[in-house]
Amino acid sequence: MKIGVLGTGMVGHTIGSRLIMLSNEVMMGSRTATNPKARDWVRTHRTGASQGSFAEAAAFGDIIFNCTKGEITLDVLQQAGAANLDGKILIDVSNPLDFSKGMPPTLIPALCNTTSLGEEIQKAYPNTKVVKALNTVSSQLMVNPSTLPGQHDLFICGNDAEAKNTVTDILKEWFGWRHVHDLGDISNARGTEMLLPVWVRLFGHLGTPNFNFHIVKGQV
Amino acid sequence: MKIGVLGTGMVGHTIGSRLIMLSNEVMMGSRTATNPKARDWVRTHRTGASQGSFAEAAAFGDIIFNCTKGEITLDVLQQAGAANLDGKILIDVSNPLDFSKGMPPTLIPALCNTTSLGEEIQKAYPNTKVVKALNTVSSQLMVNPSTLPGQHDLFICGNDAEAKNTVTDILKEWFGWRHVHDLGDISNARGTEMLLPVWVRLFGHLGTPNFNFHIVKGQV
Repeated sequence: MKIGVLGTGMVGHTIGSRLIMLSNEVMMGSRTATNPKARDWVRTHRTGASQGSFAEAAAFGDIIFNCTKGEITLDVLQQAGAANLDGKILIDVSNPLDFSKGMPPTLIPALCNTTSLGEEIQKAYPNTKVVKALNTVSSQLMVNPSTLPGQHDLFICGNDAEAKNTVTDILKEWFGWRHVHDLGDISNARGTEMLLPVWVRLFGHLGTPNFNFHIVKGQV
Repeated sequence: MKIGVLGTGMVGHTIGSRLIMLSNEVMMGSRTATNPKARDWVRTHRTGASQGSFAEAAAFGDIIFNCTKGEITLDVLQQAGAANLDGKILIDVSNPLDFSKGMPPTLIPALCNTTSLGEEIQKAYPNTKVVKALNTVSSQLMVNPSTLPGQHDLFICGNDAEAKNTVTDILKEWFGWRHVHDLGDISNARGTEMLLPVWVRLFGHLGTPNFNFHIVKGQV
Protein backbone atom coordinates (compact mmCIF):
# COMPACT_ATOMS: atom_id res chain seq x y z
CA MET A 1 0.00 0.00 0.00
CA LYS A 2 1.10 3.60 -0.57
CA ILE A 3 1.14 5.55 2.69
CA GLY A 4 1.91 9.18 3.45
CA VAL A 5 3.45 9.95 6.83
CA LEU A 6 3.26 13.61 7.83
CA GLY A 7 5.98 14.56 10.31
CA THR A 8 9.67 13.72 10.66
CA GLY A 9 9.87 13.32 14.44
CA MET A 10 10.21 10.12 16.44
CA VAL A 11 6.58 9.12 15.83
CA GLY A 12 6.84 9.60 12.07
CA HIS A 13 10.14 7.71 11.93
CA THR A 14 8.88 4.81 14.01
CA ILE A 15 5.59 4.39 12.18
CA GLY A 16 7.22 4.94 8.77
CA SER A 17 9.89 2.34 9.41
CA ARG A 18 7.38 -0.22 10.61
CA LEU A 19 5.24 0.35 7.52
CA ILE A 20 8.29 -0.14 5.26
CA MET A 21 9.17 -3.36 7.10
CA LEU A 22 5.65 -4.54 6.21
CA SER A 23 6.44 -3.95 2.49
CA ASN A 24 4.48 -0.74 2.09
CA GLU A 25 5.71 2.26 0.11
CA VAL A 26 6.01 5.24 2.43
CA MET A 27 6.60 8.90 1.62
CA MET A 28 7.59 10.98 4.62
CA GLY A 29 6.26 14.52 4.31
CA SER A 30 7.71 17.66 5.80
CA ARG A 31 7.60 21.43 5.36
CA THR A 32 10.36 21.27 2.74
CA ALA A 33 10.76 18.42 0.27
CA THR A 34 14.47 18.20 1.14
CA ASN A 35 14.17 17.96 4.94
CA PRO A 36 17.45 16.43 6.22
CA LYS A 37 15.72 14.30 8.92
CA ALA A 38 13.48 12.76 6.28
CA ARG A 39 16.52 12.26 3.98
CA ASP A 40 18.37 10.41 6.74
CA TRP A 41 15.33 8.22 7.29
CA VAL A 42 15.05 7.46 3.56
CA ARG A 43 18.72 6.45 3.50
CA THR A 44 18.26 3.88 6.29
CA HIS A 45 15.85 1.94 4.10
CA ARG A 46 16.73 0.03 0.91
CA THR A 47 13.42 0.27 -0.85
CA GLY A 48 9.97 1.75 -0.43
CA ALA A 49 11.00 4.93 1.40
CA SER A 50 10.81 8.39 -0.13
CA GLN A 51 10.40 11.97 1.00
CA GLY A 52 8.49 15.01 -0.15
CA SER A 53 6.56 18.05 0.93
CA PHE A 54 3.43 17.66 3.07
CA ALA A 55 1.38 18.05 -0.14
CA GLU A 56 3.43 15.45 -2.01
CA ALA A 57 3.22 12.93 0.83
CA ALA A 58 -0.53 13.46 1.17
CA ALA A 59 -1.03 13.07 -2.59
CA PHE A 60 1.15 9.92 -2.57
CA GLY A 61 -0.68 8.09 0.21
CA ASP A 62 -3.81 6.02 -0.09
CA ILE A 63 -3.80 6.35 3.69
CA ILE A 64 -2.21 9.22 5.66
CA PHE A 65 -0.72 9.14 9.16
CA ASN A 66 -0.64 12.52 10.89
CA CYS A 67 2.46 12.33 13.09
CA THR A 68 3.02 16.06 13.50
CA LYS A 69 2.95 17.96 16.76
CA GLY A 70 -0.59 18.97 17.63
CA GLU A 71 0.28 22.64 17.80
CA ILE A 72 1.12 22.68 14.05
CA THR A 73 -1.22 19.96 12.75
CA LEU A 74 -3.92 22.24 11.35
CA ASP A 75 -1.28 24.35 9.59
CA VAL A 76 0.42 21.21 8.23
CA LEU A 77 -2.85 19.88 6.84
CA GLN A 78 -3.48 23.19 5.11
CA GLN A 79 -0.11 22.79 3.43
CA ALA A 80 -0.98 19.18 2.57
CA GLY A 81 -4.08 20.49 0.82
CA ALA A 82 -7.71 19.41 1.01
CA ALA A 83 -7.61 17.93 -2.51
CA ASN A 84 -4.78 15.59 -1.51
CA LEU A 85 -6.70 14.41 1.58
CA ASP A 86 -10.10 14.07 -0.10
CA GLY A 87 -11.83 10.73 0.46
CA LYS A 88 -8.80 9.28 2.25
CA ILE A 89 -8.33 7.82 5.71
CA LEU A 90 -6.28 10.12 7.95
CA ILE A 91 -4.99 8.33 11.04
CA ASP A 92 -4.50 11.11 13.55
CA VAL A 93 -1.79 10.23 16.06
CA SER A 94 -1.23 13.79 17.28
CA ASN A 95 -1.97 15.43 20.63
CA PRO A 96 -2.68 19.14 21.24
CA LEU A 97 0.10 19.51 23.81
CA ASP A 98 1.09 22.98 24.94
CA PHE A 99 4.66 23.18 26.26
CA SER A 100 4.64 26.98 26.44
CA LYS A 101 3.77 27.03 30.17
CA GLY A 102 6.54 24.61 31.16
CA MET A 103 6.52 20.96 32.14
CA PRO A 104 4.45 18.91 32.36
CA PRO A 105 2.58 20.28 29.34
CA THR A 106 -1.07 21.32 29.40
CA LEU A 107 -3.36 20.85 26.44
CA ILE A 108 -3.91 23.78 24.06
CA PRO A 109 -7.00 25.39 25.65
CA ALA A 110 -8.74 26.01 22.30
CA LEU A 111 -8.29 22.34 21.37
CA CYS A 112 -9.55 20.50 24.46
CA ASN A 113 -12.52 19.74 26.70
CA THR A 114 -15.32 21.29 24.61
CA THR A 115 -13.60 20.20 21.40
CA SER A 116 -10.50 18.23 20.39
CA LEU A 117 -7.84 18.26 17.73
CA GLY A 118 -9.39 15.20 16.11
CA GLU A 119 -12.74 16.97 15.81
CA GLU A 120 -11.20 20.19 14.47
CA ILE A 121 -9.39 18.20 11.75
CA GLN A 122 -12.62 16.45 10.82
CA LYS A 123 -14.49 19.79 10.70
CA ALA A 124 -11.82 21.36 8.48
CA TYR A 125 -11.70 18.35 6.10
CA PRO A 126 -15.23 16.93 5.99
CA ASN A 127 -14.41 14.66 3.03
CA THR A 128 -11.49 13.05 4.86
CA LYS A 129 -12.12 10.03 7.09
CA VAL A 130 -10.36 11.01 10.30
CA VAL A 131 -9.64 8.15 12.71
CA LYS A 132 -8.01 9.06 16.02
CA ALA A 133 -5.65 6.31 17.15
CA LEU A 134 -2.32 5.55 18.80
CA ASN A 135 -2.13 8.95 20.55
CA THR A 136 -2.18 7.44 24.06
CA VAL A 137 1.00 5.33 23.91
CA SER A 138 4.72 5.88 23.35
CA SER A 139 6.00 5.70 19.77
CA GLN A 140 7.76 2.43 20.58
CA LEU A 141 4.53 0.81 21.78
CA MET A 142 2.51 2.13 18.83
CA VAL A 143 4.05 -0.37 16.45
CA ASN A 144 5.34 -2.97 18.95
CA PRO A 145 2.70 -3.37 21.67
CA SER A 146 4.01 -6.81 22.58
CA THR A 147 7.19 -5.26 24.01
CA LEU A 148 4.97 -4.43 27.00
CA PRO A 149 3.85 -7.76 28.45
CA GLY A 150 0.32 -8.29 29.69
CA GLN A 151 -3.05 -7.06 28.50
CA HIS A 152 -3.21 -3.37 27.63
CA ASP A 153 -5.49 -1.37 25.42
CA LEU A 154 -5.80 1.09 22.59
CA PHE A 155 -8.66 3.49 21.83
CA ILE A 156 -9.92 4.60 18.44
CA CYS A 157 -12.73 6.86 17.33
CA GLY A 158 -14.02 8.37 14.12
CA ASN A 159 -17.20 9.04 12.15
CA ASP A 160 -16.71 6.46 9.36
CA ALA A 161 -17.31 2.82 10.35
CA GLU A 162 -15.54 1.36 7.32
CA ALA A 163 -12.49 3.55 7.89
CA LYS A 164 -12.37 2.40 11.52
CA ASN A 165 -12.50 -1.22 10.36
CA THR A 166 -9.53 -0.60 8.06
CA VAL A 167 -7.59 1.15 10.82
CA THR A 168 -8.42 -1.62 13.30
CA ASP A 169 -7.03 -4.14 10.79
CA ILE A 170 -3.83 -2.09 10.49
CA LEU A 171 -3.52 -1.84 14.27
CA LYS A 172 -4.14 -5.54 14.87
CA GLU A 173 -2.65 -7.28 11.85
CA TRP A 174 0.26 -4.96 11.08
CA PHE A 175 1.16 -3.52 14.47
CA GLY A 176 0.06 -6.38 16.72
CA TRP A 177 -2.59 -4.72 18.92
CA ARG A 178 -5.01 -7.14 20.57
CA HIS A 179 -7.40 -4.86 22.50
CA VAL A 180 -8.81 -1.94 20.51
CA HIS A 181 -11.79 -0.07 21.97
CA ASP A 182 -13.89 1.80 19.39
CA LEU A 183 -15.35 4.63 21.47
CA GLY A 184 -17.63 5.97 18.74
CA ASP A 185 -17.58 9.14 16.65
CA ILE A 186 -14.70 11.61 16.42
CA SER A 187 -15.97 13.70 19.36
CA ASN A 188 -14.61 10.93 21.57
CA ALA A 189 -11.14 12.26 20.73
CA ARG A 190 -11.88 14.66 23.62
CA GLY A 191 -11.61 11.68 25.93
CA THR A 192 -8.48 10.11 24.49
CA GLU A 193 -6.59 13.41 24.04
CA MET A 194 -7.45 14.35 27.64
CA LEU A 195 -5.66 11.18 28.75
CA LEU A 196 -2.40 12.96 27.99
CA PRO A 197 -2.22 15.06 31.19
CA VAL A 198 -2.28 11.88 33.28
CA TRP A 199 -0.03 10.08 30.75
CA VAL A 200 2.75 12.66 31.10
CA ARG A 201 2.45 12.48 34.89
CA LEU A 202 2.58 8.69 34.90
CA PHE A 203 5.67 8.94 32.67
CA GLY A 204 7.31 10.99 35.44
CA HIS A 205 5.95 8.79 38.24
CA LEU A 206 6.95 5.47 36.67
CA GLY A 207 10.23 6.73 35.18
CA THR A 208 9.54 5.19 31.78
CA PRO A 209 7.26 5.73 28.77
CA ASN A 210 6.96 1.95 28.56
CA PHE A 211 3.52 1.69 30.14
CA ASN A 212 -0.07 1.65 29.03
CA PHE A 213 -3.64 1.61 30.30
CA HIS A 214 -5.58 -1.62 30.60
CA ILE A 215 -9.31 -1.30 31.11
CA VAL A 216 -10.40 -3.88 33.68
CA LYS A 217 -14.10 -4.59 33.24
CA GLY A 218 -16.36 -6.42 35.69
CA GLN A 219 -19.91 -7.70 35.53
CA VAL A 220 -22.41 -5.42 33.81
CA MET B 1 -12.47 8.31 64.25
CA LYS B 2 -14.82 11.27 63.71
CA ILE B 3 -15.36 11.94 60.01
CA GLY B 4 -17.33 14.61 58.20
CA VAL B 5 -18.84 13.68 54.84
CA LEU B 6 -19.93 16.65 52.75
CA GLY B 7 -22.66 15.74 50.27
CA THR B 8 -25.76 13.55 50.42
CA GLY B 9 -25.56 11.96 46.96
CA MET B 10 -24.62 8.40 46.10
CA VAL B 11 -20.92 9.01 46.77
CA GLY B 12 -21.54 10.52 50.22
CA HIS B 13 -23.96 7.71 51.13
CA THR B 14 -21.61 4.96 49.98
CA ILE B 15 -18.51 6.34 51.67
CA GLY B 16 -20.42 7.32 54.81
CA SER B 17 -21.95 3.87 55.20
CA ARG B 18 -18.61 2.14 54.69
CA LEU B 19 -17.02 4.38 57.34
CA ILE B 20 -19.82 3.56 59.81
CA MET B 21 -19.35 -0.15 59.12
CA LEU B 22 -15.72 0.35 60.12
CA SER B 23 -16.88 1.74 63.50
CA ASN B 24 -16.24 5.41 62.75
CA GLU B 25 -18.57 8.21 63.77
CA VAL B 26 -19.80 10.00 60.66
CA MET B 27 -21.71 13.25 60.30
CA MET B 28 -23.20 13.79 56.85
CA GLY B 29 -23.25 17.48 55.96
CA SER B 30 -25.64 19.24 53.65
CA ARG B 31 -26.91 22.72 52.88
CA THR B 32 -29.58 22.41 55.56
CA ALA B 33 -29.10 20.55 58.84
CA THR B 34 -32.42 18.75 58.30
CA ASN B 35 -31.82 17.46 54.77
CA PRO B 36 -34.23 14.51 54.23
CA LYS B 37 -31.69 12.43 52.23
CA ALA B 38 -29.22 12.71 55.10
CA ARG B 39 -32.00 11.90 57.61
CA ASP B 40 -32.90 8.73 55.69
CA TRP B 41 -29.24 7.74 55.68
CA VAL B 42 -28.92 8.34 59.42
CA ARG B 43 -32.00 6.14 60.01
CA THR B 44 -30.45 3.19 58.15
CA HIS B 45 -27.66 3.04 60.72
CA ARG B 46 -27.99 2.04 64.36
CA THR B 47 -25.09 4.02 65.78
CA GLY B 48 -22.40 6.40 64.68
CA ALA B 49 -24.40 8.24 62.02
CA SER B 50 -25.55 11.84 62.37
CA GLN B 51 -26.40 14.77 60.14
CA GLY B 52 -25.77 18.49 60.17
CA SER B 53 -25.02 21.53 58.09
CA PHE B 54 -21.84 21.65 56.02
CA ALA B 55 -20.26 23.73 58.80
CA GLU B 56 -21.35 21.29 61.52
CA ALA B 57 -20.08 18.26 59.60
CA ALA B 58 -16.74 19.97 58.88
CA ALA B 59 -16.38 20.98 62.55
CA PHE B 60 -17.27 17.44 63.64
CA GLY B 61 -14.74 15.62 61.47
CA ASP B 62 -11.08 15.02 62.21
CA ILE B 63 -10.99 14.12 58.53
CA ILE B 64 -13.39 15.44 55.88
CA PHE B 65 -14.54 13.74 52.67
CA ASN B 66 -15.72 16.13 49.98
CA CYS B 67 -18.39 14.17 48.12
CA THR B 68 -20.23 17.12 46.60
CA LYS B 69 -20.67 17.79 42.89
CA GLY B 70 -17.67 19.68 41.56
CA GLU B 71 -19.80 22.54 40.30
CA ILE B 72 -20.82 23.44 43.88
CA THR B 73 -17.75 22.30 45.82
CA LEU B 74 -16.13 25.73 46.28
CA ASP B 75 -19.45 27.19 47.44
CA VAL B 76 -20.00 24.25 49.82
CA LEU B 77 -16.55 24.68 51.37
CA GLN B 78 -17.26 28.36 51.91
CA GLN B 79 -20.37 27.31 53.86
CA ALA B 80 -18.30 24.73 55.74
CA GLY B 81 -16.00 27.55 56.80
CA ALA B 82 -12.21 27.84 56.74
CA ALA B 83 -11.99 27.61 60.54
CA ASN B 84 -13.72 24.21 60.51
CA LEU B 85 -11.31 22.91 57.84
CA ASP B 86 -8.15 24.35 59.32
CA GLY B 87 -5.29 21.87 59.75
CA LYS B 88 -7.49 18.94 58.69
CA ILE B 89 -7.18 16.41 55.89
CA LEU B 90 -9.78 16.97 53.18
CA ILE B 91 -10.14 13.98 50.88
CA ASP B 92 -11.45 15.47 47.66
CA VAL B 93 -13.50 12.91 45.72
CA SER B 94 -15.23 15.48 43.48
CA ASN B 95 -14.92 16.13 39.76
CA PRO B 96 -15.57 19.45 37.99
CA LEU B 97 -18.13 17.97 35.59
CA ASP B 98 -20.24 20.31 33.49
CA PHE B 99 -23.55 18.78 32.39
CA SER B 100 -24.90 22.08 31.02
CA LYS B 101 -23.88 21.26 27.44
CA GLY B 102 -25.54 17.84 27.42
CA MET B 103 -24.14 14.33 27.61
CA PRO B 104 -21.46 13.21 27.93
CA PRO B 105 -20.38 16.03 30.27
CA THR B 106 -17.35 18.23 29.64
CA LEU B 107 -15.23 19.58 32.48
CA ILE B 108 -15.92 23.09 33.77
CA PRO B 109 -13.51 25.12 31.59
CA ALA B 110 -12.32 27.34 34.46
CA LEU B 111 -11.48 24.24 36.51
CA CYS B 112 -9.47 22.11 34.08
CA ASN B 113 -6.30 21.82 32.02
CA THR B 114 -4.37 24.83 33.34
CA THR B 115 -5.78 24.26 36.84
CA SER B 116 -8.02 21.72 38.59
CA LEU B 117 -10.67 21.63 41.27
CA GLY B 118 -8.20 20.00 43.65
CA GLU B 119 -5.76 22.88 43.19
CA GLU B 120 -8.42 25.55 43.55
CA ILE B 121 -9.57 24.01 46.85
CA GLN B 122 -5.97 23.91 48.10
CA LYS B 123 -5.45 27.57 47.05
CA ALA B 124 -8.64 28.68 48.81
CA TYR B 125 -7.80 26.74 52.03
CA PRO B 126 -4.01 26.81 52.36
CA ASN B 127 -4.14 25.44 55.93
CA THR B 128 -6.17 22.39 54.87
CA LYS B 129 -4.36 19.27 53.67
CA VAL B 130 -6.15 18.49 50.43
CA VAL B 131 -5.64 14.97 49.07
CA LYS B 132 -7.30 14.15 45.76
CA ALA B 133 -8.43 10.53 45.69
CA LEU B 134 -11.17 8.14 44.56
CA ASN B 135 -12.46 10.50 41.85
CA THR B 136 -11.65 8.10 38.99
CA VAL B 137 -13.86 5.16 39.99
CA SER B 138 -17.56 4.47 40.58
CA SER B 139 -18.91 4.99 44.10
CA GLN B 140 -19.32 1.22 44.46
CA LEU B 141 -15.65 0.58 43.63
CA MET B 142 -14.42 3.39 45.90
CA VAL B 143 -15.09 1.38 49.03
CA ASN B 144 -15.22 -2.15 47.54
CA PRO B 145 -12.45 -2.39 44.95
CA SER B 146 -12.35 -6.17 45.24
CA THR B 147 -15.78 -6.41 43.60
CA LEU B 148 -13.86 -5.81 40.37
CA PRO B 149 -11.52 -8.79 39.98
CA GLY B 150 -7.97 -8.35 38.74
CA GLN B 151 -5.35 -5.68 39.28
CA HIS B 152 -6.59 -2.12 38.94
CA ASP B 153 -5.31 1.14 40.26
CA LEU B 154 -6.08 4.31 42.17
CA PHE B 155 -4.34 7.68 41.95
CA ILE B 156 -3.78 10.16 44.75
CA CYS B 157 -2.03 13.52 44.92
CA GLY B 158 -1.56 16.31 47.42
CA ASN B 159 1.04 18.64 48.88
CA ASP B 160 1.36 17.09 52.36
CA ALA B 161 3.28 13.80 52.52
CA GLU B 162 1.98 12.83 55.97
CA ALA B 163 -1.62 13.48 54.93
CA LYS B 164 -1.10 11.29 51.86
CA ASN B 165 0.24 8.50 54.08
CA THR B 166 -2.88 8.71 56.25
CA VAL B 167 -5.14 8.69 53.19
CA THR B 168 -3.23 5.77 51.66
CA ASP B 169 -3.75 3.83 54.90
CA ILE B 170 -7.50 4.58 54.76
CA LEU B 171 -7.65 3.51 51.10
CA LYS B 172 -5.72 0.31 51.66
CA GLU B 173 -6.66 -0.83 55.15
CA TRP B 174 -10.24 0.40 55.34
CA PHE B 175 -11.40 0.29 51.73
CA GLY B 176 -9.20 -2.53 50.40
CA TRP B 177 -7.21 -0.81 47.64
CA ARG B 178 -3.98 -2.58 46.71
CA HIS B 179 -2.46 -0.32 44.03
CA VAL B 180 -2.32 3.38 44.91
CA HIS B 181 -0.13 5.64 42.76
CA ASP B 182 0.99 8.84 44.49
CA LEU B 183 1.46 11.20 41.54
CA GLY B 184 2.93 14.06 43.57
CA ASP B 185 1.62 17.48 44.56
CA ILE B 186 -1.96 18.66 44.19
CA SER B 187 -1.36 20.05 40.67
CA ASN B 188 -1.49 16.43 39.53
CA ALA B 189 -5.24 16.61 40.11
CA ARG B 190 -5.25 18.08 36.58
CA GLY B 191 -4.29 14.66 35.33
CA THR B 192 -6.73 12.59 37.36
CA GLU B 193 -9.70 14.94 36.89
CA MET B 194 -9.03 14.96 33.13
CA LEU B 195 -9.48 11.18 33.17
CA LEU B 196 -13.20 11.80 33.54
CA PRO B 197 -13.94 12.59 29.88
CA VAL B 198 -12.60 9.16 28.86
CA TRP B 199 -14.21 7.56 31.95
CA VAL B 200 -17.70 8.72 30.99
CA ARG B 201 -17.13 7.48 27.44
CA LEU B 202 -15.90 4.10 28.63
CA PHE B 203 -19.00 3.90 30.84
CA GLY B 204 -21.09 4.24 27.67
CA HIS B 205 -18.86 1.93 25.63
CA LEU B 206 -18.69 -0.85 28.22
CA GLY B 207 -22.29 -0.47 29.43
CA THR B 208 -21.29 -0.50 33.10
CA PRO B 209 -19.55 1.74 35.65
CA ASN B 210 -17.92 -1.42 37.01
CA PHE B 211 -14.52 -0.90 35.38
CA ASN B 212 -11.22 0.70 36.23
CA PHE B 213 -7.81 1.55 34.82
CA HIS B 214 -4.84 -0.68 35.43
CA ILE B 215 -1.45 0.80 34.62
CA VAL B 216 0.64 -1.88 32.94
CA LYS B 217 4.34 -1.03 33.34
CA GLY B 218 7.23 -2.59 31.48
CA GLN B 219 10.98 -2.39 31.81
CA VAL B 220 12.39 1.06 32.58
